[in-house]
Amino acid sequence: MRKTLVFQSDFGLVDGAVAAMYGVSLGVDESLRLFDLTHEIQPYNIWEASYRLYQAVQFWPEGTVFVSVIDPGVGSDRKSVVAKTKLGHYIVTPDNGTLTHLKLYVGITEVRTINEGLHMRSTVGGSHTFHGRDLYANTGAKLASGLIDFEAVGPAIATSEIVELPVDKVIVEEKRIIGSIDTLDLRFGSLWTSITQEDFAKLGFQYGDRVEVAIRHDHSLVYNNRVTYGKSFADVFVSEQILYVNSLYRMAVAINQGNFAKAYSIGMGRQWTIELIKG
Amino acid sequence: MRKTLVFQSDFGLVDGAVAAMYGVSLGVDESLRLFDLTHEIQPYNIWEASYRLYQAVQFWPEGTVFVSVIDPGVGSDRKSVVAKTKLGHYIVTPDNGTLTHLKLYVGITEVRTINEGLHMRSTVGGSHTFHGRDLYANTGAKLASGLIDFEAVGPAIATSEIVELPVDKVIVEEKRIIGSIDTLDLRFGSLWTSITQEDFAKLGFQYGDRVEVAIRHDHSLVYNNRVTYGKSFADVFVSEQILYVNSLYRMAVAINQGNFAKAYSIGMGRQWTIELIKG
Amino acid sequence: MRKTLVFQSDFGLVDGAVAAMYGVSLGVDESLRLFDLTHEIQPYNIWEASYRLYQAVQFWPEGTVFVSVIDPGVGSDRKSVVAKTKLGHYIVTPDNGTLTHLKLYVGITEVRTINEGLHMRSTVGGSHTFHGRDLYANTGAKLASGLIDFEAVGPAIATSEIVELPVDKVIVEEKRIIGSIDTLDLRFGSLWTSITQEDFAKLGFQYGDRVEVAIRHDHSLVYNNRVTYGKSFADVFVSEQILYVNSLYRMAVAINQGNFAKAYSIGMGRQWTIELIKG
Repeated sequence: MRKTLVFQSDFGLVDGAVAAMYGVSLGVDESLRLFDLTHEIQPYNIWEASYRLYQAVQFWPEGTVFVSVIDPGVGSDRKSVVAKTKLGHYIVTPDNGTLTHLKLYVGITEVRTINEGLHMRSTVGGSHTFHGRDLYANTGAKLASGLIDFEAVGPAIATSEIVELPVDKVIVEEKRIIGSIDTLDLRFGSLWTSITQEDFAKLGFQYGDRVEVAIRHDHSLVYNNRVTYGKSFADVFVSEQILYVNSLYRMAVAINQGNFAKAYSIGMGRQWTIELIKG
Repeated sequence: MRKTLVFQSDFGLVDGAVAAMYGVSLGVDESLRLFDLTHEIQPYNIWEASYRLYQAVQFWPEGTVFVSVIDPGVGSDRKSVVAKTKLGHYIVTPDNGTLTHLKLYVGITEVRTINEGLHMRSTVGGSHTFHGRDLYANTGAKLASGLIDFEAVGPAIATSEIVELPVDKVIVEEKRIIGSIDTLDLRFGSLWTSITQEDFAKLGFQYGDRVEVAIRHDHSLVYNNRVTYGKSFADVFVSEQILYVNSLYRMAVAINQGNFAKAYSIGMGRQWTIELIKG
Repeated sequence: MRKTLVFQSDFGLVDGAVAAMYGVSLGVDESLRLFDLTHEIQPYNIWEASYRLYQAVQFWPEGTVFVSVIDPGVGSDRKSVVAKTKLGHYIVTPDNGTLTHLKLYVGITEVRTINEGLHMRSTVGGSHTFHGRDLYANTGAKLASGLIDFEAVGPAIATSEIVELPVDKVIVEEKRIIGSIDTLDLRFGSLWTSITQEDFAKLGFQYGDRVEVAIRHDHSLVYNNRVTYGKSFADVFVSEQILYVNSLYRMAVAINQGNFAKAYSIGMGRQWTIELIKG
């Protein structure tokens, strides 16, 4: 146990908000090791927050504590919870949907609501708009430092009780698979779909084959073309499009050294569907 | 004492400048713990640098050393100093106004000018444009590591001698309070004013009351409306405007899940005033 | 030896990619100290990656391990290597030109190709598009932690074998020097040239002298003016142009508190040349 605490938020790094959470955490235990997942979640975008947790958490050592603060409902009666994943990570977060993808793809074994007493300033009144600093960082730091154990966070609730965003199931047919564009590899403009490598394998394509790809936004066709299925970017020309297995072992579409999402103005979320077709 | 060193600058994270300061610091003592406040201060904006220090420093453990390098006057005869705050933090900085808000709102108890001998490359000549790396990181690292104590930084000067930016006092009248928009919560577009929770309380508003708000830029009226005074964002509708106590216990104005500053093109600084009126 | 691992990439900090590399590294050895050089290298820009390594690596303690992942050829037969610099730093990187400036300006004493066995997922198949996480972070972490030594990385190859980007030599004549604009100090818009302080000294200018500066893009004249040679920015007026020695002891051109690169739409790389002339 190395006292590792990792932060995610939609605060950006442009002001002192993240630094205030760091300071509070070191005030709990100055030997904590602090890291960032990302602070560039689009403001209020719980879906993206949920996906980034799925993307990164699984690669950290068991026992790592994450604090995720995308909290449009600060001050409402939304719960504050700590979830334990099947792989042994802890996530401190408002219960607003942030745990959706971890629950679905990794598994959540236990959830506890956070005791009022862990609110750093509960006795002094004052600000009610920065629970990231006063409640979540404080709780995460106490948990990561070992000052409290998971049981001391607060009463357990059923994992079925936590808020989940709607996620569409992938549809697998004999000649086609329909999934959604769950997220974008933002910097490179690749589309990351919900379709797993295993599901795609059922269509029986080989590296080098051309796959028909249809992308729809709210049922309107946005893109329809044939794309080479490659093992890696080096299998296609620079500027060529490629269908490949991404680093989460799901199907993705990209332009080699270009930006697919920008080229066709494609976004992320449930209303963006992708169909892979054996012609 | 945990050897914690925290950096702030206007360098951004796009090139190797911050990494060079980190490297120099670890060259002084490889066991130092290095963190960032922010490196996204608007280039040359000493006011913003000063406010960010006030926003974040107070939440860090006593004894933490901060290096702040917003240094438009590099190479001039502006002093280089280390200030000690009332809460026991150290700030290593060019003396150009960066200490304004800490002095005003937290208190500075002692200031020392930095000895020439702490200039890492003072004997080799060469660059005179990156004191962040060669002087401030080096001094901060020596102080944080305990290689030198505060007295060894250099001779004390009177706290009254340091450069302060002009700050307007909040005006409290029976039916109104006038303050300034000290900074923006940049990512969310909230206006953070100089008016404290205590001063606002004198007007006698209750949660749910409508408060008249007038915002002026250089005496021209930019915004004038009635805004709900709420405890937290959840007290108003999404897209509704709210007047609330921010995380520094000062009055702030926001659009719930919107961006107030963008909506009305509002900036920060002394020339932006805000009036809260009991109608 | 402090187990320090420093990352550079073109991934940005907007998603979970960097955090996944961090997690994998701590999975190797949870006591590793992790830092960033920058993750804002322009996507696929190997030249910039190479220059940033030169800008920052030399200021870190001997023995520091760097992982640099700008990898447009992921999945091709480009080699994966670890280079040791003359100053005793290690760079884990695809062999695609990233080592150009370190080799030229600092010196590289030894290069080893990375054994297949260091591929974290070499036995499970799957993704072939994120070697940063699965190969480079894993190798860097093992080397920084001392789990393997440099010899165990893989077989040595001749330093002459690594890929180098073409770099033009600075031309020194009696009355003029011609170099290239190697990079921009992006945040401030200063031009950083390949011309050293020593070479410039041969022209015999003194502080305060006016130097003729001609900038060409692909042989077309873009800028031609006389600029004051100053010791530091404080030697010229705000908004005045200045020729000075930058923090890497090479000649640079800037507008004091302005942005030279934006003012004249100037970029970086071999096709951008700069001539300093004694009139």
